[in-house]
Amino acid sequence: MAGIALYELAGAEDDRRFSPFCWRIHLALLHKGLAFETIPWRFTEKERIAVSGSEKVPVLEDGATVVPDSWAIAEYLDATYPDRPLLDSPMAKAEARFIGAWTERVLQGDLFRLIVTDIEAHLHEKDRAYFRSSREARLGTTLEVFCNRSLEPLRGDLGPLRHSLIAQPFLSGAAPAWADYMVFGAFQWARCVSPLQLLEPSDPVWQWRERMLDAFDGAGRAAKGYAA
Amino acid sequence: MAGIALYELAGAEDDRRFSPFCWRIHLALLHKGLAFETIPWRFTEKERIAVSGSEKVPVLEDGATVVPDSWAIAEYLDATYPDRPLLDSPMAKAEARFIGAWTERVLQGDLFRLIVTDIEAHLHEKDRAYFRSSREARLGTTLEVFCNRSLEPLRGDLGPLRHSLIAQPFLSGAAPAWADYMVFGAFQWARCVSPLQLLEPSDPVWQWRERMLDAFDGAGRAAKGYAA
Repeated sequence: MAGIALYELAGAEDDRRFSPFCWRIHLALLHKGLAFETIPWRFTEKERIAVSGSEKVPVLEDGATVVPDSWAIAEYLDATYPDRPLLDSPMAKAEARFIGAWTERVLQGDLFRLIVTDIEAHLHEKDRAYFRSSREARLGTTLEVFCNRSLEPLRGDLGPLRHSLIAQPFLSGAAPAWADYMVFGAFQWARCVSPLQLLEPSDPVWQWRERMLDAFDGAGRAAKGYAA
Repeated sequence: MAGIALYELAGAEDDRRFSPFCWRIHLALLHKGLAFETIPWRFTEKERIAVSGSEKVPVLEDGATVVPDSWAIAEYLDATYPDRPLLDSPMAKAEARFIGAWTERVLQGDLFRLIVTDIEAHLHEKDRAYFRSSREARLGTTLEVFCNRSLEPLRGDLGPLRHSLIAQPFLSGAAPAWADYMVFGAFQWARCVSPLQLLEPSDPVWQWRERMLDAFDGAGRAAKGYAA
């Protein structure tokens, strides 16, 4: 196809786009100022993205080029469209791996436990059995038993994020970039499916999230989800 | 004074240099290839560094310039000696704040609980009462009650570090730099006072620590401490 298209995980409604990894790329494309369309996709539509070699989104199509995996897409975007870099140096890229690993292993771990039943409630009907069986196999228990609404682990684990956001407005410095998109993607995942209020307005993390929700003409804030 | 001098926290022996924050700067100076001398200092010698405006080390003297605080010293070194940067871009610097905050709040938190009585055992006699009373006031309990030798919290919290070191040899990429010195400083703190074996040799974090111990002609490995 001509132009850029991003396959994004959608819920029951086509416009409930809740994948944290897709949000990374959505914001990265806005960061680059590139025109793109998004294509709603569900967990069970693996054949629709088979050409990418991946079974998961995000998948980016750019003309004849197809790139899966959010990290690989970020690298592709910086290599292909070097203006407005997502990562402005080799060291910035290497360090971002740590922030990405923390996002996936700590932050998204805490959030998954808080919102797992909210995710399931917002899935497209055709994805529900797949989601439940694949996640329950991984967790070794039911979604309902695994789900825990205590905010304490999350708020404790946010310490390093909070501390860096006291020193500077964004994780990437004076303006948001890839590190911010990775972490914000996790919060946007929660916001799109769950009414839980994760943060207090006095928290520097809340204030950073407000700045991120306002970025790019409020793209994050306009997403179908909850106001919390 | 002429030349560069680094005040480093020392234990009972002048050459037991166990401060994680001083290790950051020690390695940063080796990274820059700068000649420097180190000056042993104890917790209770606050008047000896009063000119810095700080009550803690590291304090760097560079001719007539005196700089306290490891982060400020790293900034000073990159500004004054721009060859071989510790942080190679504005984004690398901003992201390093997160890694530093994680090091101080998560990694050093876990290590402190593991080694706090080992630290006390290796202090200079004149520092012991100060260390115990200041730390026990902060902890709200005795060092002995607070100390816990379980390795589980540490090994779990190392997940993001482990994951990024599977992707690349150093946190900073192909070669070590500031992010590595911050995290390695924490491990060196433990190594200099405690015989506890914190890691398994099969752990990518162990393997990275080996590379760091070998760096700069084995400066970290040669430090007075334990082999674990």
